[in-house]
Amino acid sequence: MYCQSCKNVYDEEDAGTCKECYEEASETEEELKREIDDLRSRLLFLRLPSPTLDASAAGHSDLLLHAIPASSSSSTSPSPSGDADGARLDTPAVPAHRVILASRSPVFRAMLDSEMEESRSGVIKMYDVSYDVLRAFVHYMYTGEALLDEQMACDLLVLAEKYEVKHLKTYCEKFITSKVNNDNAIVHYAFAHRHGAKQLLEASMSALMDSMPTLAEREEYKELVERDPRILVEIYETYVSRQDNTAAERDSDCCCRK
Amino acid sequence: MYCQSCKNVYDEEDAGTCKECYEEASETEEELKREIDDLRSRLLFLRLPSPTLDASAAGHSDLLLHAIPASSSSSTSPSPSGDADGARLDTPAVPAHRVILASRSPVFRAMLDSEMEESRSGVIKMYDVSYDVLRAFVHYMYTGEALLDEQMACDLLVLAEKYEVKHLKTYCEKFITSKVNNDNAIVHYAFAHRHGAKQLLEASMSALMDSMPTLAEREEYKELVERDPRILVEIYETYVSRQDNTAAERDSDCCCRK
Repeated sequence: MYCQSCKNVYDEEDAGTCKECYEEASETEEELKREIDDLRSRLLFLRLPSPTLDASAAGHSDLLLHAIPASSSSSTSPSPSGDADGARLDTPAVPAHRVILASRSPVFRAMLDSEMEESRSGVIKMYDVSYDVLRAFVHYMYTGEALLDEQMACDLLVLAEKYEVKHLKTYCEKFITSKVNNDNAIVHYAFAHRHGAKQLLEASMSALMDSMPTLAEREEYKELVERDPRILVEIYETYVSRQDNTAAERDSDCCCRK
Repeated sequence: MYCQSCKNVYDEEDAGTCKECYEEASETEEELKREIDDLRSRLLFLRLPSPTLDASAAGHSDLLLHAIPASSSSSTSPSPSGDADGARLDTPAVPAHRVILASRSPVFRAMLDSEMEESRSGVIKMYDVSYDVLRAFVHYMYTGEALLDEQMACDLLVLAEKYEVKHLKTYCEKFITSKVNNDNAIVHYAFAHRHGAKQLLEASMSALMDSMPTLAEREEYKELVERDPRILVEIYETYVSRQDNTAAERDSDCCCRK
């Protein structure tokens, strides 16, 4: 058989694909590529200029978001550049538009459609968030894009969960899942547990199962014993149940062979 | 050769594709499909609720667009429901948001970033546009989608050209091009000519070349003789030049055979 694609000649008994089926597959590929081009061009049209990058894109903005990092919001006395509730406001505000935030997040929608102080003043304090994470969050609301590393993905996932921005949560979860390995599995498992991230939970559980013998020696394990031992109990339960299943399969294999 | 795809058996001499190449093509198809899913989900995220459909989506709107159809704007005396420049305002205004229109159209951007009356008042009169076309236009600005027939596609293309919304212009041009046939080619050719729609121009010129012998009998032809005879001259020039090329090819074929 002569292969049209790689130009080699094969033995007759080698299975392959006939000319018609191959051509049909190529046509499908062309169609899919056209669809991708079409979707990409619609994305470019729908993508909005991010007010975090472009001063002109911040035009007509009717909201100002202030990042209040965890360390600032927990401070007890007002700082020189802070306000009444002790929040330091020494990073610039991030401009945004009500229509965008309300359409991406049910939490913002409820806040901005109400008579809450934030809606009246157009100033929203975002607690426990660094300025960089807030900027990345707002950028995503306009563009559907984010430049991630593991830390940023975790921080954005927490924010996405709080403001119910499902698409961003899934985006970050996918990224973190791709970074799971034996070394970070326990940290990511605990994180996924706290934030209901199912895909990440499964990936890190799989990695944990491969490193059970050395798990208890890890620093993160010892911290978890103190902070949230129930998570460790869950891991052990899964381990024992899988061991049990493997044993049952082995036994059933032995019976068949007898 | 046994085809893995359609399960038929072929003669050895039939060209086909080997197993590896076929599997590679299948993998490519899977990858492309995953990319399509990913792009679709980003589109769903970036798509904004259209203020023409959903009252709640019109919330936080800071603009009102009024459709002034051609027949109204040319009326000389103010109607009972009209305003000072004689425009009838008897259809409801379409709400919109400055940030959306400014980001999709350089014309709106220039208007809204300036000190023009429209920017100050937040009221924009859209001349020579019907209410339905204006609604479809605004809907597209939020969703990147439009429900088209030939008339709507032509009307939206004109509006997209006026407000420099390239993506919408291309979208409408593609649709109209798919509807070109011998019967409507002359109308679409003239339309494409007026609005610089190159793809439509080529498709309707091709259709025209096939129907030259009966062209002069058409009503639209006679109208064009009166209104814009230069367009007809262009069509005849192309026809003659193609006839000439065909003759030259025929001659060169004859020479080769000698």
